[in-house]
Amino acid sequence: MDFSKLKKRNEAMDLLLENWAPRPETEFVELDDAEGYVLAENQYAAFSIPVVRASGMDGIAVRYDDFSEGIPDTSGWIEGREYVRADTGDDFDDAYDTVIPIERVTILEQGGLSLDADVKIEKGMHVLGKGSMLWEGQLLAEKGTRLQGRHLAALASGGVCQVPVIRKPRVGFIPTGSELIPAGTTPRRGQNIDSNSILAKSMLREMGAEPICYPIVKDRQDELSQALDKALSECDIVIINAGSSKGKEDFNTRLLRSKGKLLCHGVAAVPGRPMGVAVIEGKAVINIPGPSMAAFYGLDWMIRGIVCRWLGIPLPKRPVVQAELLEDLPAPPFLERLVFIELSEKDGTYFAKSHERGEKGRRHAMSSDGIFVSSLGKGGLKKGEIIEVEWLD
Amino acid sequence: MDFSKLKKRNEAMDLLLENWAPRPETEFVELDDAEGYVLAENQYAAFSIPVVRASGMDGIAVRYDDFSEGIPDTSGWIEGREYVRADTGDDFDDAYDTVIPIERVTILEQGGLSLDADVKIEKGMHVLGKGSMLWEGQLLAEKGTRLQGRHLAALASGGVCQVPVIRKPRVGFIPTGSELIPAGTTPRRGQNIDSNSILAKSMLREMGAEPICYPIVKDRQDELSQALDKALSECDIVIINAGSSKGKEDFNTRLLRSKGKLLCHGVAAVPGRPMGVAVIEGKAVINIPGPSMAAFYGLDWMIRGIVCRWLGIPLPKRPVVQAELLEDLPAPPFLERLVFIELSEKDGTYFAKSHERGEKGRRHAMSSDGIFVSSLGKGGLKKGEIIEVEWLD
Repeated sequence: MDFSKLKKRNEAMDLLLENWAPRPETEFVELDDAEGYVLAENQYAAFSIPVVRASGMDGIAVRYDDFSEGIPDTSGWIEGREYVRADTGDDFDDAYDTVIPIERVTILEQGGLSLDADVKIEKGMHVLGKGSMLWEGQLLAEKGTRLQGRHLAALASGGVCQVPVIRKPRVGFIPTGSELIPAGTTPRRGQNIDSNSILAKSMLREMGAEPICYPIVKDRQDELSQALDKALSECDIVIINAGSSKGKEDFNTRLLRSKGKLLCHGVAAVPGRPMGVAVIEGKAVINIPGPSMAAFYGLDWMIRGIVCRWLGIPLPKRPVVQAELLEDLPAPPFLERLVFIELSEKDGTYFAKSHERGEKGRRHAMSSDGIFVSSLGKGGLKKGEIIEVEWLD
Repeated sequence: MDFSKLKKRNEAMDLLLENWAPRPETEFVELDDAEGYVLAENQYAAFSIPVVRASGMDGIAVRYDDFSEGIPDTSGWIEGREYVRADTGDDFDDAYDTVIPIERVTILEQGGLSLDADVKIEKGMHVLGKGSMLWEGQLLAEKGTRLQGRHLAALASGGVCQVPVIRKPRVGFIPTGSELIPAGTTPRRGQNIDSNSILAKSMLREMGAEPICYPIVKDRQDELSQALDKALSECDIVIINAGSSKGKEDFNTRLLRSKGKLLCHGVAAVPGRPMGVAVIEGKAVINIPGPSMAAFYGLDWMIRGIVCRWLGIPLPKRPVVQAELLEDLPAPPFLERLVFIELSEKDGTYFAKSHERGEKGRRHAMSSDGIFVSSLGKGGLKKGEIIEVEWLD
């Protein structure tokens, strides 16, 4: 096999985007339902807070004029006449214009006040004017924001109730393979659990798409064709899982070719090298290889890349850590290799071990701590080298 | 005010944990519902995959004995007699023991096979034995894992359907303040929107708790007392929001003292300094100050810390970036200061601007890019200094 003919990951993505474009639409959702959506338009505050004014401290509101020539005798003052109580955030009558912190005031038993001798009074002090906390027209959240709780709080505080968002792209996931059985059944000889549907549903949700997971399709040309037609009619983007390599039952590549334009078959990335990228009826159709790590990787870079472009957001960042390799890490120079990593830590130094499939005594690769992707052209790494590991959630 | 008497954040947490302990319980949830829960026990695979064997390549399965003395004449071979098709993951009959990749095989028109002259045959090659992909008893996911899609896929692949998880702690959130009105109404003079309930609901869910958000309580002693009693009867942990400082209406601190043990009133962290920490009827009750940034900070460090301890998981990591300060950043040396940061980037260098409340022309602080916490004892920072900013999701 001539690996130099394989598309690099970014080339495969560019090729898709030359032949297919996301078609984001705006829809309105209730603020309560808006978490995880991407904001379609800048949102601005509809009113100012304070509406008129508010105290910036717990204290008493007074007239500055009473203090213009020094601290007066306040022992006979009466609440509601010379002063009012004004705690943080409280509005108070227009008659008063200045707030003295409660810590500097003693309220006397017979009414009246005693102020600390050294209290300094400035006109308007500790008074928050109209709009000083939030002003009408202030930018609450920017177009392109993936809405989290804090953004919803900002929108609510400025009076936004109906939120214009990018409709989530509907991403269909078709698991294929005669050997597959649904989770919850015990595999017999030759069978395997379809765990990729569970993975895809969760990952698609997390990346901001609406997953539509279809039933398992056997390796039969007619069933695959029908399943793809159904998904094309219901989804914006379709993932066919497995059947991407060259075996007898690998109808899927032929299917993509027969129904539309197969842009690319094979990427310079393992696991998942025989990925197929096609456009059919104006929709992106990606054939992701079946093994679970290949499915993870394909979802993580290709599908996440497509979904982020659809939504108009950058790829999310993951926390990273520098870690020392505990063993040699073989990697072909002509392929990027995704490696699942187990991390350990001693005295503030992190150590990384790759997670080879089938190695006895280790936990399941999908439960690893993080991932590392080897660079194209670099090849294998040696024990003791420092690699950058992305923590997985 | 003597700031040296304030508890540091870790001291406030330690004090709580000396007087109160999480009481995690295990419950079982369906795999479909398990995302976001914390696994209560190690989970192991119930069976092996392959159950017997599987082909590791797309190819044909043959008997090694036919190749023990070199490559035989295969032109008259018949499928089902001398060989069978065996694609990746396929089981095949016990009569065969070795797989030849399909790329090295040509299937002749009249049946029969032509093998590449240089093909190397080794006994058992490209055959995945029983348990080579997953073995009975393999650790699928570890106790203490916050379950994401990839863990659910691992559990499913090994036959786990009912998942033992830590019950999510029920965290009650009581918004208090006579000035508060619910989101969706327009504030009149002296009113403000309760946006903290929206913030808390989202943040509590994200940290792995079950939020119970109560209606707004006016600043009336009897109503506050009733609301707290209700929350104590329904929740594991209770947050009273606002009413934590020393104003006339700040019943809440007094309330905590009267109903239980007030462990701490005031922490060396702003915003949110007048936080109250109490234990009442064996439950943790935290009084978080009302301003939105104080609420965010209090939820982010104190409540997240408590919830993570309840669940037995480490604090989650955030991506970080080194950024150059574009302006002086005042911070008192005797308090940790949480600063909301706007980041910009030029030629790979990040620049940070703090997000002061009320500064005109800036977006809402809650929509910032990240946060920075100044160190105790360090005080203000100068323009040009490099700070470490945590990206917010």
